[in-house]
Amino acid sequence: MYLHDIPFPEAQSRFEEALKETNLWGMIGIEQIPLDEMALGRVLAESVWAKLSAPHYHAAAMDGYSVRSRETEGASQTHPLSLLISDQAVYVDTGDALPAWADAVIPIEVVETLDLEGNPTPVDQSPQAIRIRAAVTPWRHIRPMGEDIVTTQLILPAGHTLRPVDLGAIAASGHERVSVSRRPKVAIIPTGSELVPIGSDVSPGEIIEFNSIVLASQVTDWGGEATRFPITPDDFDQLCAQVSNAAKDYDLILLNAGSSAGAEDYSATVVEQLGELLVHGVAVRPGHPVILGMINQFGEPVKPESISNDGTEFKPKPTPIIGVPGYPVSSALTGELFVEPLLSRWLGRRPAKHKTTEAIITRKITSPAGDDDYVRVVLGQVADRLLAAPLARGAGVITSLVRADGLALLPRGSQGLHAGEVVHVRLYRDMMEIDNTIFATGSHDITLDILSQFLFPAERRLVSTNVGSIGGLIALQRNEAHLAGAHLLDPHSGEFNISYVKQYLPDFAVNIIALVGRQQGLLVPKGNPKQIKSLSDLARSDVTFVNRQRGSGTRVLLDYHLDALNIAKEAIQGYNHEEFTHLAVGAAIASGRGDCGLGIAAVTHALDLEFIPLFEERYDLIIPKEFSSNSLLAPLFEVIEDTNFRKLVASLPGYDIVPMGKLIAELP
Amino acid sequence: MYLHDIPFPEAQSRFEEALKETNLWGMIGIEQIPLDEMALGRVLAESVWAKLSAPHYHAAAMDGYSVRSRETEGASQTHPLSLLISDQAVYVDTGDALPAWADAVIPIEVVETLDLEGNPTPVDQSPQAIRIRAAVTPWRHIRPMGEDIVTTQLILPAGHTLRPVDLGAIAASGHERVSVSRRPKVAIIPTGSELVPIGSDVSPGEIIEFNSIVLASQVTDWGGEATRFPITPDDFDQLCAQVSNAAKDYDLILLNAGSSAGAEDYSATVVEQLGELLVHGVAVRPGHPVILGMINQFGEPVKPESISNDGTEFKPKPTPIIGVPGYPVSSALTGELFVEPLLSRWLGRRPAKHKTTEAIITRKITSPAGDDDYVRVVLGQVADRLLAAPLARGAGVITSLVRADGLALLPRGSQGLHAGEVVHVRLYRDMMEIDNTIFATGSHDITLDILSQFLFPAERRLVSTNVGSIGGLIALQRNEAHLAGAHLLDPHSGEFNISYVKQYLPDFAVNIIALVGRQQGLLVPKGNPKQIKSLSDLARSDVTFVNRQRGSGTRVLLDYHLDALNIAKEAIQGYNHEEFTHLAVGAAIASGRGDCGLGIAAVTHALDLEFIPLFEERYDLIIPKEFSSNSLLAPLFEVIEDTNFRKLVASLPGYDIVPMGKLIAELP
Repeated sequence: MYLHDIPFPEAQSRFEEALKETNLWGMIGIEQIPLDEMALGRVLAESVWAKLSAPHYHAAAMDGYSVRSRETEGASQTHPLSLLISDQAVYVDTGDALPAWADAVIPIEVVETLDLEGNPTPVDQSPQAIRIRAAVTPWRHIRPMGEDIVTTQLILPAGHTLRPVDLGAIAASGHERVSVSRRPKVAIIPTGSELVPIGSDVSPGEIIEFNSIVLASQVTDWGGEATRFPITPDDFDQLCAQVSNAAKDYDLILLNAGSSAGAEDYSATVVEQLGELLVHGVAVRPGHPVILGMINQFGEPVKPESISNDGTEFKPKPTPIIGVPGYPVSSALTGELFVEPLLSRWLGRRPAKHKTTEAIITRKITSPAGDDDYVRVVLGQVADRLLAAPLARGAGVITSLVRADGLALLPRGSQGLHAGEVVHVRLYRDMMEIDNTIFATGSHDITLDILSQFLFPAERRLVSTNVGSIGGLIALQRNEAHLAGAHLLDPHSGEFNISYVKQYLPDFAVNIIALVGRQQGLLVPKGNPKQIKSLSDLARSDVTFVNRQRGSGTRVLLDYHLDALNIAKEAIQGYNHEEFTHLAVGAAIASGRGDCGLGIAAVTHALDLEFIPLFEERYDLIIPKEFSSNSLLAPLFEVIEDTNFRKLVASLPGYDIVPMGKLIAELP
Repeated sequence: MYLHDIPFPEAQSRFEEALKETNLWGMIGIEQIPLDEMALGRVLAESVWAKLSAPHYHAAAMDGYSVRSRETEGASQTHPLSLLISDQAVYVDTGDALPAWADAVIPIEVVETLDLEGNPTPVDQSPQAIRIRAAVTPWRHIRPMGEDIVTTQLILPAGHTLRPVDLGAIAASGHERVSVSRRPKVAIIPTGSELVPIGSDVSPGEIIEFNSIVLASQVTDWGGEATRFPITPDDFDQLCAQVSNAAKDYDLILLNAGSSAGAEDYSATVVEQLGELLVHGVAVRPGHPVILGMINQFGEPVKPESISNDGTEFKPKPTPIIGVPGYPVSSALTGELFVEPLLSRWLGRRPAKHKTTEAIITRKITSPAGDDDYVRVVLGQVADRLLAAPLARGAGVITSLVRADGLALLPRGSQGLHAGEVVHVRLYRDMMEIDNTIFATGSHDITLDILSQFLFPAERRLVSTNVGSIGGLIALQRNEAHLAGAHLLDPHSGEFNISYVKQYLPDFAVNIIALVGRQQGLLVPKGNPKQIKSLSDLARSDVTFVNRQRGSGTRVLLDYHLDALNIAKEAIQGYNHEEFTHLAVGAAIASGRGDCGLGIAAVTHALDLEFIPLFEERYDLIIPKEFSSNSLLAPLFEVIEDTNFRKLVASLPGYDIVPMGKLIAELP
């Protein structure tokens, strides 16, 4: 048990010290590469100074005749002047060098060409003279030598990352090669007996190994050269062999995972065995079981050429190693926190500077006081406030990183935030994209996902946080979304949503717009093994139910019908087992955690379940009037009218597009 | 003469129509590629739906014992419970699948392991039972199946550009390949008899061909595959052969240049000969002689397999061609305006959305009313205003693109802007970098370039616009810079700068800080062919002088000494030939445009000139107090104290670092 979390800055500085001691805290190599499109994105190892001026001669800036300006003095519309070709005027194309005696160019358009008698020349005959009707000032229509670049001028500083135009300027200044920092070579070693390669048929307990792809892509993105090693099982000797092998040929080793403190977590011991364990555990969440160390390259025979002149042995440099935690979110975050700054240092450029913003957190989050806690959030600008809605916090939820617009940092010392407090967010996405985000909340429906795809070409992002139908109305009331999905049955009127909107948003001007009609029913495993037919079966002692959370439209629907049928909730096994989405209910049934649940038909197809239709309902969008006339939402209304969109929704089982787009109510 | 400029939107829509007619206004191909780091940056051709849930089984979230939660009910600190291993408790590592009957995990840390008699087991012995002192709730320490991803869930929409974490999520959802749009193949054909390849020894009139590298890098950056063709001379037949050859194998041809209307500009005729000329000339500056067209692939034998079933001949698709103007700035801008949107369309992603900002232009710019005029600017935040200082406007000045922070757009109809007016700027650089920009003005000194390099690691950019010493004071007075360089001799006191600052900045609190002492003298060609010794020689009839602009410190110095020596300015040939920098004066002399000029010694080394020292002067930084205590400028003061910086400056000929960093005056 080594694992002992230390604060992030301390971990960083221990690593930095070790790298400095071994001369690895700076550029690790320089190479001269040809100046072509492969140089794009490389980092200049040395400043570039011009070897050549541009233009490197006085060049004609127009097609025309080069002349001595003083010989044109006095020419005017009424008193034209003639100049003899070759002695006084020489034709030049744009870019041509001027004769040494010339100091101006007269554009071809304002010149009359003449023969020796002073008559205009036909097109097919060489002129002998030109006639001009205006004087020209010295250096007119000339690009003087050095106009763009003067020899020895600084073109670009060391540390600069090359863009397309830079390559042009370097070439123009007389270089054919460019001195850039070497790309660091990074070995990525996935470890774990439970891991299987991508594309394998998986059995329970087997995990698809994909962290190495994410790490390799990060390394590529950050200017390194990544090599993914084959999966090494949890075997101390094999791990040692693999790591010391990689240490010979690579600048950095990323060992993923085995970095925790379990029985089969060998990473720390491997590092201790082969070198120096500097850090085991960093107070960062997700990501804390990070290992930082240095692998010595002993075991290597000392080659004759590596013995220096005075006979002392050449000591090979140690190779830094980072033990990357296994959970995918931890792994990706370890890349950002530890790998990127090191690669930047080695490449001689500034470390990535993260764009940050302040936002208002939409719900309470708790955080361990001892850790820097990174919470993935989605961002949306609602009215005049930038909102951050926290995503799933589990370190295993890679989709939370895919969906994230940024990382909210709750620094050490903070025990969390209340809803409405300001949080600092490191941005993953451009603010321009976030400004184009439609922030949806409330109940989720698959139609929203399809809507989101159709909105993509219109430069709108639809981000939905699912808090259930009533939760959505409360969110609107707090100005936390542009719209909310709801399918709330009013038991008295049999209408949907209107009475709830009146109750929860009494002072709000809102439009209720129908999105879709859909069937609710019981989700059961294929073949319906327990022969469930109706809600009455839920009270059977051999039946376990999977419920939706309080405040969801489906829960309201269930409770209404249970009351109507006089079925006691206490009699239903699993009534307290709450899931937050239709898909989650379906997944619980598909995996055997329950026998049935109330949900929508679309889920059955996804999870190979059966559907017993019970009720029809309407799923509406509740949109405050403040936003419904807003240009942000305009493309959404267009998509709802789009024939292709409607066709696709209609093709889903249990969906009815007849009400789609109908204005159900304008309130108040 | 085809060239007739049409407005940009009209050019765009003509091109778009022609592409639509031939089914080329959309994705041009889809390919399945393996899911690895090579997929990074590719654009999804189809939406990705989950084939597998993640986890795809109920997985232990901790190392510990999997149990039935109901069998733990009643356990407490004082009333521990025992569970038999294998029947009631099974050890699992994090990530392991649970036994089918288990519904919770108890972490190893809170479990006591026992033998069959209920005694604690030693480490080397397998336990037979566990003792627990707390109950566990159902699904505790379990990652339920589908926690991250539920089968058939939308992972990512078509049109999305793949980032590292996306690859992880796609792999986790059961895919081993991914469907992405094919990279468009782009042929770049440089044309021009005056062009020579990079690295050639150049003679006057020869131009280093580098546009193809800039265009190829742009294409690479934008997701295409660029091929640079060899240089084709200005020969109609060779051009036709090259273009029709490229049309067979490439999706797009960029023909650079020959797109203007000169005698040797064949591009338009080539396009007419081989296909359809859609546009010749777009009202955009720089860049107007753009050609848009379609090349037909006739001349190709009709292959048997390309004849469809009903016997009609297969008509190969035409290949779009863009005639790119030859001036480097025009060429790069044509890439941005025409090539990027087309590649985005072909890749199925949204066209690049340019970040824009509004800024205040620092000096008057005029613009042709008929054109969209793009003016390269540098940007700096000075006090509460974002300023845009225009850079050199010539289409040949590639360094203006290298230095540019953005493009100010003066749309059709605008004839220009006065200083102080607001301009719309398309950003090339992040606003965060611009916020870290020290905006320097006034007189330029090479020391500022070195300062700029030393500031690079401190995340400061030093941008200097050179307006001469007095111009700099005026700029400070208008709040248009953080500091100004000046070397203004007061003829009465013999002091530098103080009296000028009092005159031009009477109400400003400023610090005057010495940067460097330096020699001014006469710059003459190597060997001093005209035997120039002192300012008196300037009046000689065989001597042509190159002057600096009015308001520059060097001009003030010159005029002071000419007056002192009673030399009439009218007697000096070239007195009215003004250059704006020391380097420009040096370049003019090196190229024979003048015999001598007043300047600093550093220039002579650069341009292989000789230096006749005449005067000592001090070059100061004038810094308003408002900025001198600002964190933005703090690194600048550190660099001025830096030993390595001082050593480097001291090594320049004619420089004296003794005064460096000295506070000359605090005013008022």
